[in-house]
Amino acid sequence: MAQARSKKLLVEHFCVGTGSDSHNNSRKLDFVATEEPLEIRLNDTTISTTMRTPGHDFELAAGFCLTEGLLDGGVVSSIRYCATSPASETEFNVVTVETVGDIPTPKPRLGTVTSACGVCGAESIAKLCENLLPLAGTQRIPLEVLAQIPEKVRPHQTLFSKTGGVHAAAACSIEGEPLVVREDIGRHNAVDKVIGRLLLDDELPARNSAIKPQQPTRPRAAEQQLCLFVSGRASFEMLQKAWAGGFSAVVSVSSPSSLAVELAQKANIQLAGFVRGGSLNLYNL
Amino acid sequence: MAQARSKKLLVEHFCVGTGSDSHNNSRKLDFVATEEPLEIRLNDTTISTTMRTPGHDFELAAGFCLTEGLLDGGVVSSIRYCATSPASETEFNVVTVETVGDIPTPKPRLGTVTSACGVCGAESIAKLCENLLPLAGTQRIPLEVLAQIPEKVRPHQTLFSKTGGVHAAAACSIEGEPLVVREDIGRHNAVDKVIGRLLLDDELPARNSAIKPQQPTRPRAAEQQLCLFVSGRASFEMLQKAWAGGFSAVVSVSSPSSLAVELAQKANIQLAGFVRGGSLNLYNL
Repeated sequence: MAQARSKKLLVEHFCVGTGSDSHNNSRKLDFVATEEPLEIRLNDTTISTTMRTPGHDFELAAGFCLTEGLLDGGVVSSIRYCATSPASETEFNVVTVETVGDIPTPKPRLGTVTSACGVCGAESIAKLCENLLPLAGTQRIPLEVLAQIPEKVRPHQTLFSKTGGVHAAAACSIEGEPLVVREDIGRHNAVDKVIGRLLLDDELPARNSAIKPQQPTRPRAAEQQLCLFVSGRASFEMLQKAWAGGFSAVVSVSSPSSLAVELAQKANIQLAGFVRGGSLNLYNL
Repeated sequence: MAQARSKKLLVEHFCVGTGSDSHNNSRKLDFVATEEPLEIRLNDTTISTTMRTPGHDFELAAGFCLTEGLLDGGVVSSIRYCATSPASETEFNVVTVETVGDIPTPKPRLGTVTSACGVCGAESIAKLCENLLPLAGTQRIPLEVLAQIPEKVRPHQTLFSKTGGVHAAAACSIEGEPLVVREDIGRHNAVDKVIGRLLLDDELPARNSAIKPQQPTRPRAAEQQLCLFVSGRASFEMLQKAWAGGFSAVVSVSSPSSLAVELAQKANIQLAGFVRGGSLNLYNL
Protein backbone atom coordinates (compact mmCIF):
# COMPACT_ATOMS: atom_id res chain seq x y z
CA MET A 1 0.00 0.00 0.00
CA ALA A 2 1.51 3.30 -1.04
CA GLN A 3 1.80 6.28 1.25
CA ALA A 4 -0.88 8.92 1.54
CA ARG A 5 -0.30 12.23 -0.24
CA SER A 6 -1.55 14.19 2.76
CA LYS A 7 -1.82 13.72 6.50
CA LYS A 8 -4.57 14.87 8.81
CA LEU A 9 -3.65 16.51 12.09
CA LEU A 10 -5.02 18.73 14.80
CA VAL A 11 -4.00 22.39 14.57
CA GLU A 12 -4.73 25.46 16.61
CA HIS A 13 -6.18 28.28 14.58
CA PHE A 14 -5.55 31.76 15.90
CA CYS A 15 -7.01 34.99 14.61
CA VAL A 16 -6.50 38.54 15.78
CA GLY A 17 -9.94 39.98 16.55
CA THR A 18 -11.24 43.43 15.72
CA GLY A 19 -11.32 44.59 19.34
CA SER A 20 -8.04 45.25 21.10
CA ASP A 21 -8.09 42.11 23.23
CA SER A 22 -10.46 39.95 21.28
CA HIS A 23 -8.42 37.11 19.85
CA ASN A 24 -9.98 33.91 18.66
CA ASN A 25 -8.44 30.51 19.26
CA SER A 26 -9.95 27.30 18.03
CA ARG A 27 -8.81 23.80 17.24
CA LYS A 28 -9.53 22.05 13.98
CA LEU A 29 -8.46 19.09 11.92
CA ASP A 30 -6.38 20.12 8.95
CA PHE A 31 -4.40 18.46 6.17
CA VAL A 32 -0.70 18.94 5.43
CA ALA A 33 1.04 17.62 2.33
CA THR A 34 3.13 14.51 2.92
CA GLU A 35 6.87 14.95 2.50
CA GLU A 36 9.08 11.86 2.37
CA PRO A 37 12.50 11.20 0.88
CA LEU A 38 12.68 9.24 -2.37
CA GLU A 39 15.91 7.60 -3.38
CA ILE A 40 16.26 7.25 -7.14
CA ARG A 41 18.54 4.59 -8.58
CA LEU A 42 19.49 4.27 -12.23
CA ASN A 43 20.49 0.66 -12.89
CA ASP A 44 23.07 0.07 -10.16
CA THR A 45 23.78 3.64 -9.16
CA THR A 46 22.02 5.85 -6.62
CA ILE A 47 21.67 9.16 -8.43
CA SER A 48 19.52 11.28 -6.13
CA THR A 49 17.58 11.47 -2.91
CA THR A 50 14.84 14.05 -3.16
CA MET A 51 12.18 15.15 -0.67
CA ARG A 52 8.90 14.61 -2.44
CA THR A 53 5.18 14.05 -1.98
CA PRO A 54 4.49 10.34 -2.54
CA GLY A 55 2.50 9.44 -5.63
CA HIS A 56 3.59 9.09 -9.27
CA ASP A 57 7.01 8.03 -8.03
CA PHE A 58 7.83 6.07 -11.18
CA GLU A 59 7.13 9.13 -13.29
CA LEU A 60 9.26 11.24 -10.99
CA ALA A 61 12.17 8.82 -11.25
CA ALA A 62 11.93 8.49 -15.03
CA GLY A 63 11.49 12.22 -15.51
CA PHE A 64 14.43 13.02 -13.27
CA CYS A 65 16.70 10.65 -15.22
CA LEU A 66 15.66 12.31 -18.46
CA THR A 67 15.83 15.94 -17.42
CA GLU A 68 19.19 15.45 -15.75
CA GLY A 69 20.54 14.05 -19.02
CA LEU A 70 21.27 10.60 -17.59
CA LEU A 71 19.44 8.52 -20.19
CA ASP A 72 21.44 9.78 -23.17
CA GLY A 73 19.28 8.03 -25.69
CA GLY A 74 18.83 4.84 -23.61
CA VAL A 75 15.35 3.41 -23.21
CA VAL A 76 13.67 2.79 -19.86
CA SER A 77 12.86 -0.92 -19.65
CA SER A 78 11.47 -1.17 -16.14
CA ILE A 79 10.82 0.86 -13.02
CA ARG A 80 10.23 -0.74 -9.63
CA TYR A 81 10.14 -0.06 -5.94
CA CYS A 82 12.87 -1.59 -3.86
CA ALA A 83 12.13 -5.26 -3.48
CA THR A 84 14.37 -6.15 -0.57
CA SER A 85 11.94 -5.20 2.17
CA PRO A 86 8.52 -5.83 0.70
CA ALA A 87 6.78 -5.86 4.07
CA SER A 88 7.93 -2.41 5.01
CA GLU A 89 6.17 0.86 4.32
CA THR A 90 9.52 2.33 3.43
CA GLU A 91 9.93 0.10 0.40
CA PHE A 92 8.01 2.84 -1.35
CA ASN A 93 10.83 5.31 -0.78
CA VAL A 94 13.36 3.72 -3.11
CA VAL A 95 12.77 3.49 -6.87
CA THR A 96 15.04 1.82 -9.40
CA VAL A 97 14.95 2.76 -13.08
CA GLU A 98 16.41 0.16 -15.42
CA THR A 99 17.38 0.76 -19.01
CA VAL A 100 18.22 -1.22 -22.10
CA GLY A 101 20.82 -0.14 -24.57
CA ASP A 102 24.14 1.37 -23.72
CA ILE A 103 23.95 4.31 -21.45
CA PRO A 104 27.06 5.74 -19.93
CA THR A 105 27.66 5.38 -16.20
CA PRO A 106 25.52 8.17 -14.73
CA LYS A 107 27.24 11.46 -15.35
CA PRO A 108 26.96 14.63 -13.33
CA ARG A 109 23.67 16.42 -13.88
CA LEU A 110 23.23 18.51 -16.99
CA GLY A 111 23.01 21.72 -15.08
CA THR A 112 25.85 21.08 -12.73
CA VAL A 113 28.41 23.76 -12.96
CA THR A 114 31.99 22.71 -12.90
CA SER A 115 34.12 23.06 -9.82
CA ALA A 116 36.64 25.03 -11.83
CA CYS A 117 37.18 28.51 -10.56
CA GLY A 118 35.18 30.98 -12.55
CA VAL A 119 31.86 29.24 -12.56
CA CYS A 120 29.15 31.56 -13.81
CA GLY A 121 25.78 31.59 -15.43
CA ALA A 122 27.25 31.81 -18.91
CA GLU A 123 29.18 28.62 -18.27
CA SER A 124 26.12 26.85 -16.90
CA ILE A 125 24.28 27.68 -20.10
CA ALA A 126 27.25 26.73 -22.28
CA LYS A 127 27.36 23.37 -20.52
CA LEU A 128 23.68 22.79 -21.24
CA CYS A 129 24.15 23.72 -24.87
CA GLU A 130 26.62 20.90 -25.24
CA ASN A 131 23.79 18.45 -24.65
CA LEU A 132 20.73 20.20 -25.97
CA LEU A 133 19.76 21.79 -29.26
CA PRO A 134 17.75 25.01 -29.48
CA LEU A 135 14.16 24.19 -30.36
CA ALA A 136 13.46 24.79 -34.02
CA GLY A 137 10.36 24.90 -36.16
CA THR A 138 7.94 25.63 -33.36
CA GLN A 139 5.14 28.09 -33.75
CA ARG A 140 4.57 30.81 -31.19
CA ILE A 141 1.62 30.12 -28.93
CA PRO A 142 -0.76 33.13 -28.84
CA LEU A 143 -0.49 35.13 -25.63
CA GLU A 144 -4.22 34.92 -24.96
CA VAL A 145 -3.86 31.14 -24.88
CA LEU A 146 -0.93 31.29 -22.43
CA ALA A 147 -2.84 33.77 -20.24
CA GLN A 148 -5.68 31.29 -19.68
CA ILE A 149 -3.57 28.30 -18.66
CA PRO A 150 -3.38 28.86 -14.86
CA GLU A 151 -7.17 28.98 -14.61
CA LYS A 152 -7.50 25.82 -16.67
CA VAL A 153 -4.99 23.94 -14.52
CA ARG A 154 -6.41 25.14 -11.19
CA PRO A 155 -9.36 22.67 -11.00
CA HIS A 156 -6.85 19.80 -11.31
CA GLN A 157 -4.81 20.94 -8.29
CA THR A 158 -6.68 18.72 -5.86
CA LEU A 159 -3.90 18.30 -3.33
CA PHE A 160 -3.37 22.06 -3.26
CA SER A 161 -7.07 22.54 -2.58
CA LYS A 162 -6.77 20.17 0.37
CA THR A 163 -3.46 21.35 1.86
CA GLY A 164 -2.58 24.73 0.36
CA GLY A 165 0.98 23.48 0.36
CA VAL A 166 2.03 21.93 -2.93
CA HIS A 167 3.18 23.09 -6.32
CA ALA A 168 1.72 21.99 -9.63
CA ALA A 169 3.18 21.47 -13.07
CA ALA A 170 1.27 20.68 -16.23
CA ALA A 171 1.85 19.82 -19.84
CA CYS A 172 -0.63 21.75 -21.94
CA SER A 173 -1.54 21.62 -25.61
CA ILE A 174 -0.98 24.63 -27.83
CA GLU A 175 -4.67 25.34 -27.31
CA GLY A 176 -3.88 25.71 -23.59
CA GLU A 177 -5.63 22.52 -22.48
CA PRO A 178 -3.98 20.65 -19.58
CA LEU A 179 -3.00 17.14 -20.69
CA VAL A 180 -0.98 15.99 -17.67
CA VAL A 181 -1.12 17.70 -14.26
CA ARG A 182 1.04 16.65 -11.33
CA GLU A 183 1.48 18.04 -7.80
CA ASP A 184 4.38 17.85 -5.38
CA ILE A 185 5.85 19.68 -2.44
CA GLY A 186 8.87 20.37 -4.68
CA ARG A 187 8.43 22.41 -7.86
CA HIS A 188 11.16 20.46 -9.64
CA ASN A 189 9.52 17.16 -8.67
CA ALA A 190 6.16 18.23 -10.10
CA VAL A 191 7.91 19.05 -13.38
CA ASP A 192 9.80 15.74 -13.40
CA LYS A 193 6.54 13.85 -12.79
CA VAL A 194 4.92 15.52 -15.80
CA ILE A 195 7.92 14.88 -18.02
CA GLY A 196 8.23 11.31 -16.74
CA ARG A 197 4.59 10.61 -17.65
CA LEU A 198 5.15 11.90 -21.18
CA LEU A 199 8.35 9.89 -21.47
CA LEU A 200 6.66 6.65 -20.39
CA ASP A 201 3.81 7.31 -22.82
CA ASP A 202 6.28 8.08 -25.60
CA GLU A 203 4.64 11.47 -25.91
CA LEU A 204 7.62 13.60 -25.06
CA PRO A 205 8.02 16.43 -27.55
CA ALA A 206 11.74 16.39 -26.93
CA ARG A 207 12.13 12.85 -28.16
CA ASN A 208 13.25 13.89 -31.58
CA SER A 209 14.19 17.46 -31.02
CA ALA A 210 16.06 18.76 -28.03
CA ILE A 211 18.34 16.02 -26.83
CA LYS A 212 21.43 15.12 -28.78
CA PRO A 213 22.60 12.68 -29.92
CA GLN A 214 19.27 11.97 -31.54
CA GLN A 215 18.40 8.33 -31.09
CA PRO A 216 14.72 8.02 -31.94
CA THR A 217 13.45 4.56 -31.12
CA ARG A 218 10.75 4.65 -33.78
CA PRO A 219 9.50 7.15 -36.31
CA ARG A 220 6.82 9.54 -35.16
CA ALA A 221 4.02 10.81 -37.34
CA ALA A 222 4.44 14.35 -36.17
CA GLU A 223 6.07 16.10 -33.30
CA GLN A 224 3.65 17.55 -30.88
CA GLN A 225 4.22 20.98 -29.45
CA LEU A 226 3.56 21.42 -25.74
CA CYS A 227 3.64 24.15 -23.14
CA LEU A 228 4.89 23.61 -19.58
CA PHE A 229 2.96 25.28 -16.76
CA VAL A 230 4.60 25.78 -13.35
CA SER A 231 2.74 27.16 -10.33
CA GLY A 232 5.81 28.81 -8.88
CA ARG A 233 8.73 30.85 -10.11
CA ALA A 234 10.64 30.05 -13.28
CA SER A 235 14.23 29.44 -12.24
CA PHE A 236 17.20 28.22 -14.26
CA GLU A 237 16.40 24.67 -13.17
CA MET A 238 12.81 24.86 -14.43
CA LEU A 239 13.96 26.10 -17.82
CA GLN A 240 16.62 23.42 -17.97
CA LYS A 241 14.00 20.75 -17.42
CA ALA A 242 11.60 22.35 -19.90
CA TRP A 243 14.36 22.39 -22.50
CA ALA A 244 15.33 18.77 -21.85
CA GLY A 245 11.65 17.89 -22.21
CA GLY A 246 11.35 19.82 -25.47
CA PHE A 247 8.60 22.21 -24.38
CA SER A 248 8.20 25.20 -26.65
CA ALA A 249 6.76 27.49 -23.98
CA VAL A 250 6.93 27.90 -20.21
CA VAL A 251 4.11 29.58 -18.28
CA SER A 252 4.85 30.62 -14.70
CA VAL A 253 2.44 32.31 -12.31
CA SER A 254 5.39 34.10 -10.73
CA SER A 255 8.61 35.69 -11.89
CA PRO A 256 11.51 34.27 -13.86
CA SER A 257 15.12 34.65 -12.78
CA SER A 258 17.75 36.40 -14.86
CA LEU A 259 19.30 33.07 -15.80
CA ALA A 260 15.93 31.59 -16.77
CA VAL A 261 15.43 34.46 -19.21
CA GLU A 262 18.88 33.90 -20.72
CA LEU A 263 18.27 30.19 -21.04
CA ALA A 264 14.85 30.70 -22.65
CA GLN A 265 16.46 32.94 -25.27
CA LYS A 266 19.19 30.40 -25.96
CA ALA A 267 16.76 27.48 -26.16
CA ASN A 268 14.15 29.38 -28.16
CA ILE A 269 11.47 28.75 -25.53
CA GLN A 270 8.61 31.24 -25.12
CA LEU A 271 8.77 32.37 -21.48
CA ALA A 272 5.73 33.98 -19.86
CA GLY A 273 5.79 35.08 -16.22
CA PHE A 274 3.32 36.61 -13.76
CA VAL A 275 0.56 34.83 -15.66
CA ARG A 276 -2.36 35.83 -13.47
CA GLY A 277 -5.89 37.09 -13.97
CA GLY A 278 -5.63 37.30 -17.74
CA SER A 279 -2.37 39.20 -17.94
CA LEU A 280 1.25 38.17 -18.33
CA ASN A 281 4.76 39.35 -19.11
CA LEU A 282 6.65 37.84 -22.03
CA TYR A 283 10.38 37.78 -21.39
CA ASN A 284 12.01 36.79 -24.66
CA LEU A 285 11.09 39.31 -27.30
CA MET B 1 32.71 45.00 -8.21
CA ALA B 2 30.11 42.54 -7.07
CA GLN B 3 27.19 41.45 -9.23
CA ALA B 4 23.87 43.24 -9.23
CA ARG B 5 21.00 41.63 -7.34
CA SER B 6 18.57 42.35 -10.17
CA LYS B 7 18.73 42.92 -13.91
CA LYS B 8 16.68 45.29 -15.99
CA LEU B 9 15.19 44.07 -19.24
CA LEU B 10 12.51 44.83 -21.78
CA VAL B 11 9.36 42.74 -21.46
CA GLU B 12 6.09 42.60 -23.33
CA HIS B 13 3.09 43.07 -21.10
CA PHE B 14 -0.13 41.48 -22.31
CA CYS B 15 -3.57 41.84 -20.80
CA VAL B 16 -6.85 40.33 -21.85
CA GLY B 17 -9.31 43.19 -22.35
CA THR B 18 -12.93 43.35 -21.32
CA GLY B 19 -14.28 43.23 -24.86
CA SER B 20 -14.02 39.97 -26.78
CA ASP B 21 -11.19 41.05 -29.02
CA SER B 22 -9.71 43.89 -27.04
CA HIS B 23 -6.30 42.75 -25.87
CA ASN B 24 -3.65 45.15 -24.71
CA ASN B 25 0.01 44.75 -25.56
CA SER B 26 2.69 47.09 -24.36
CA ARG B 27 6.42 47.02 -23.79
CA LYS B 28 8.05 48.11 -20.56
CA LEU B 29 11.33 47.87 -18.69
CA ASP B 30 11.14 45.46 -15.80
CA PHE B 31 13.46 43.94 -13.22
CA VAL B 32 14.15 40.25 -12.68
CA ALA B 33 16.10 38.86 -9.75
CA THR B 34 19.65 37.82 -10.59
CA GLU B 35 20.36 34.10 -10.37
CA GLU B 36 23.97 32.91 -10.50
CA PRO B 37 25.68 29.77 -9.24
CA LEU B 38 27.80 30.06 -6.10
CA GLU B 39 30.38 27.42 -5.37
CA ILE B 40 31.04 27.03 -1.65
CA ARG B 41 34.34 25.59 -0.47
CA LEU B 42 35.14 24.61 3.10
CA ASN B 43 38.90 24.71 3.53
CA ASP B 44 40.08 22.57 0.62
CA THR B 45 36.81 20.85 -0.24
CA THR B 46 34.03 21.97 -2.57
CA ILE B 47 30.89 21.24 -0.60
CA SER B 48 28.11 22.75 -2.68
CA THR B 49 27.15 24.68 -5.76
CA THR B 50 23.90 26.53 -5.24
CA MET B 51 21.92 28.83 -7.52
CA ARG B 52 21.57 32.07 -5.57
CA THR B 53 20.98 35.78 -5.85
CA PRO B 54 24.34 37.53 -5.41
CA GLY B 55 24.80 39.55 -2.24
CA HIS B 56 25.67 38.46 1.31
CA ASP B 57 27.62 35.57 -0.18
CA PHE B 58 29.91 35.24 2.83
CA GLU B 59 26.90 34.91 5.12
CA LEU B 60 25.39 32.35 2.78
CA ALA B 61 28.56 30.28 2.75
CA ALA B 62 29.03 30.44 6.53
CA GLY B 63 25.39 29.73 7.20
CA PHE B 64 25.36 26.80 4.83
CA CYS B 65 28.39 25.25 6.52
CA LEU B 66 26.72 25.58 9.90
CA THR B 67 23.23 24.39 9.00
CA GLU B 68 24.60 21.41 7.13
CA GLY B 69 26.53 20.40 10.23
CA LEU B 70 29.93 20.80 8.61
CA LEU B 71 31.55 23.04 11.22
CA ASP B 72 31.12 20.61 14.12
CA GLY B 73 32.32 23.10 16.71
CA GLY B 74 35.08 24.56 14.52
CA VAL B 75 35.39 28.32 14.26
CA VAL B 76 35.29 30.26 10.99
CA SER B 77 38.58 32.15 10.66
CA SER B 78 38.17 33.71 7.23
CA ILE B 79 35.88 33.85 4.24
CA ARG B 80 37.01 35.04 0.84
CA TYR B 81 36.12 35.08 -2.81
CA CYS B 82 38.24 33.00 -5.13
CA ALA B 83 41.51 34.80 -5.63
CA THR B 84 42.84 33.06 -8.70
CA SER B 85 41.04 35.18 -11.27
CA PRO B 86 40.77 38.60 -9.67
CA ALA B 87 40.05 40.39 -12.92
CA SER B 88 37.03 38.31 -13.73
CA GLU B 89 33.45 39.00 -12.79
CA THR B 90 33.10 35.34 -12.00
CA GLU B 91 35.53 35.53 -9.12
CA PHE B 92 32.45 36.46 -7.13
CA ASN B 93 30.90 33.07 -7.75
CA VAL B 94 33.31 31.02 -5.65
CA VAL B 95 33.58 31.49 -1.89
CA THR B 96 35.99 29.72 0.43
CA VAL B 97 35.29 29.36 4.15
CA GLU B 98 38.34 28.64 6.29
CA THR B 99 38.27 27.37 9.84
CA VAL B 100 40.60 27.02 12.77
CA GLY B 101 40.46 24.10 15.13
CA ASP B 102 39.96 20.52 14.12
CA ILE B 103 36.95 19.93 12.00
CA PRO B 104 36.41 16.61 10.35
CA THR B 105 36.72 16.32 6.60
CA PRO B 106 33.34 17.60 5.38
CA LYS B 107 30.73 14.95 6.02
CA PRO B 108 27.51 14.38 4.16
CA ARG B 109 24.87 16.95 5.02
CA LEU B 110 22.93 16.58 8.22
CA GLY B 111 19.69 15.98 6.43
CA THR B 112 21.02 13.53 3.91
CA VAL B 113 19.25 10.27 4.13
CA THR B 114 21.27 7.15 3.82
CA SER B 115 21.36 5.14 0.66
CA ALA B 116 20.35 2.07 2.62
CA CYS B 117 17.12 0.53 1.46
CA GLY B 118 14.29 1.62 3.67
CA VAL B 119 14.99 5.32 3.79
CA CYS B 120 12.07 7.17 5.28
CA GLY B 121 11.14 10.33 7.10
CA ALA B 122 11.57 8.70 10.50
CA GLU B 123 15.14 7.82 9.60
CA SER B 124 15.85 11.34 8.35
CA ILE B 125 14.70 12.71 11.69
CA ALA B 126 16.61 10.08 13.65
CA LYS B 127 19.75 11.04 11.74
CA LEU B 128 19.25 14.70 12.65
CA CYS B 129 18.70 13.83 16.28
CA GLU B 130 22.16 12.28 16.39
CA ASN B 131 23.62 15.73 15.85
CA LEU B 132 21.13 18.09 17.43
CA LEU B 133 19.51 18.36 20.84
CA PRO B 134 15.87 19.33 21.32
CA LEU B 135 15.63 22.96 22.36
CA ALA B 136 15.07 23.30 26.09
CA GLY B 137 14.17 26.13 28.41
CA THR B 138 12.62 28.35 25.80
CA GLN B 139 9.46 30.29 26.44
CA ARG B 140 6.54 30.11 24.05
CA ILE B 141 6.18 33.23 21.94
CA PRO B 142 2.62 34.60 22.10
CA LEU B 143 0.58 33.88 18.97
CA GLU B 144 -0.36 37.53 18.52
CA VAL B 145 3.35 38.33 18.25
CA LEU B 146 3.93 35.59 15.66
CA ALA B 147 0.88 36.76 13.69
CA GLN B 148 2.36 40.23 13.18
CA ILE B 149 5.78 39.16 11.92
CA PRO B 150 5.08 38.98 8.15
CA GLU B 151 3.83 42.57 8.11
CA LYS B 152 6.87 43.73 10.05
CA VAL B 153 9.28 41.98 7.68
CA ARG B 154 7.53 43.13 4.50
CA PRO B 155 8.99 46.68 4.36
CA HIS B 156 12.48 45.15 4.41
CA GLN B 157 11.83 42.98 1.34
CA THR B 158 13.23 45.54 -1.07
CA LEU B 159 14.32 43.11 -3.77
CA PHE B 160 10.89 41.48 -3.72
CA SER B 161 9.29 44.90 -4.18
CA LYS B 162 11.47 45.44 -7.22
CA THR B 163 11.25 42.01 -8.85
CA GLY B 164 8.36 40.09 -7.27
CA GLY B 165 10.59 37.06 -7.53
CA VAL B 166 12.59 36.38 -4.38
CA HIS B 167 12.02 34.80 -1.00
CA ALA B 168 12.83 36.38 2.33
CA ALA B 169 13.96 34.99 5.66
CA ALA B 170 14.34 36.92 8.89
CA ALA B 171 15.55 36.46 12.43
CA CYS B 172 13.09 38.17 14.75
CA SER B 173 13.15 38.93 18.44
CA ILE B 174 10.59 37.39 20.75
CA GLU B 175 8.78 40.72 20.48
CA GLY B 176 8.44 40.02 16.74
CA GLU B 177 10.90 42.69 15.60
CA PRO B 178 13.00 41.80 12.53
CA LEU B 179 16.71 41.86 13.43
CA VAL B 180 18.22 40.40 10.25
CA VAL B 181 16.36 40.17 6.94
CA ARG B 182 17.81 38.56 3.83
CA GLU B 183 16.42 37.86 0.36
CA ASP B 184 17.32 35.27 -2.23
CA ILE B 185 15.84 33.45 -5.18
CA GLY B 186 16.19 30.27 -3.10
CA ARG B 187 14.31 29.94 0.19
CA HIS B 188 17.08 27.84 1.72
CA ASN B 189 19.68 30.43 0.71
CA ALA B 190 17.76 33.25 2.39
CA VAL B 191 17.69 31.20 5.59
CA ASP B 192 21.40 30.39 5.35
CA LYS B 193 22.20 34.08 4.86
CA VAL B 194 20.30 35.00 8.02
CA ILE B 195 21.94 32.23 10.04
CA GLY B 196 25.35 33.06 8.59
CA ARG B 197 25.01 36.71 9.66
CA LEU B 198 24.15 35.64 13.22
CA LEU B 199 27.04 33.16 13.23
CA LEU B 200 29.54 35.77 12.10
CA ASP B 201 28.23 38.19 14.73
CA ASP B 202 28.40 35.47 17.39
CA GLU B 203 24.69 36.03 17.96
CA LEU B 204 23.49 32.59 17.02
CA PRO B 205 21.07 31.25 19.60
CA ALA B 206 22.18 27.74 18.75
CA ARG B 207 25.75 28.36 19.73
CA ASN B 208 25.33 26.81 23.13
CA SER B 209 22.17 24.87 22.71
CA ALA B 210 21.26 22.83 19.69
CA ILE B 211 24.45 21.52 18.20
CA LYS B 212 26.33 18.74 19.92
CA PRO B 213 29.04 18.22 20.87
CA GLN B 214 28.84 21.50 22.68
CA GLN B 215 32.03 23.42 22.18
CA PRO B 216 31.31 26.97 23.30
CA THR B 217 34.13 29.28 22.37
CA ARG B 218 33.42 31.68 25.22
CA PRO B 219 30.80 32.00 27.94
CA ARG B 220 27.68 33.93 27.03
CA ALA B 221 25.78 36.12 29.46
CA ALA B 222 22.45 34.78 28.36
CA GLU B 223 21.11 32.89 25.44
CA GLN B 224 18.88 34.91 23.23
CA GLN B 225 15.70 33.44 21.92
CA LEU B 226 14.86 34.10 18.28
CA CYS B 227 12.15 33.33 15.79
CA LEU B 228 12.81 32.45 12.15
CA PHE B 229 10.49 33.90 9.51
CA VAL B 230 10.28 32.34 6.04
CA SER B 231 8.26 33.83 3.20
CA GLY B 232 7.50 30.46 1.63
CA ARG B 233 6.49 27.02 2.78
CA ALA B 234 8.01 25.31 5.80
CA SER B 235 9.58 22.11 4.53
CA PHE B 236 11.75 19.57 6.32
CA GLU B 237 14.84 21.43 5.12
CA MET B 238 13.66 24.74 6.59
CA LEU B 239 13.01 23.14 9.97
CA GLN B 240 16.36 21.38 9.84
CA LYS B 241 18.11 24.70 9.33
CA ALA B 242 16.03 26.41 12.02
CA TRP B 243 16.96 23.65 14.44
CA ALA B 244 20.65 23.83 13.58
CA GLY B 245 20.42 27.58 14.14
CA GLY B 246 18.68 27.13 17.48
CA PHE B 247 15.53 29.12 16.65
CA SER B 248 12.69 28.51 19.07
CA ALA B 249 9.92 29.32 16.58
CA VAL B 250 9.37 29.20 12.83
CA VAL B 251 6.82 31.47 11.15
CA SER B 252 5.83 30.59 7.59
CA VAL B 253 3.36 32.49 5.41
CA SER B 254 2.45 29.21 3.74
CA SER B 255 1.95 25.61 4.77
CA PRO B 256 4.29 23.19 6.51
CA SER B 257 4.92 19.67 5.24
CA SER B 258 4.17 16.55 7.24
CA LEU B 259 7.86 16.03 7.94
CA ALA B 260 8.31 19.64 9.03
CA VAL B 261 5.58 19.16 11.63
CA GLU B 262 7.21 15.97 12.91
CA LEU B 263 10.58 17.66 13.10
CA ALA B 264 9.17 20.68 14.94
CA GLN B 265 7.68 18.39 17.55
CA LYS B 266 10.95 16.50 17.97
CA ALA B 267 13.02 19.68 18.19
CA ASN B 268 10.54 21.53 20.41
CA ILE B 269 10.20 24.38 17.92
CA GLN B 270 6.96 26.39 17.77
CA LEU B 271 5.71 26.04 14.19
CA ALA B 272 3.18 28.53 12.81
CA GLY B 273 1.94 28.30 9.22
CA PHE B 274 -0.38 30.30 6.99
CA VAL B 275 0.60 33.39 8.97
CA ARG B 276 -1.35 35.98 6.99
CA GLY B 277 -3.56 38.93 7.75
CA GLY B 278 -3.49 38.46 11.50
CA SER B 279 -4.28 34.77 11.59
CA LEU B 280 -2.21 31.62 11.73
CA ASN B 281 -2.25 27.88 12.34
CA LEU B 282 -0.09 26.41 15.09
CA TYR B 283 1.03 22.89 14.24
CA ASN B 284 2.65 21.50 17.34
CA LEU B 285 0.12 21.53 20.15
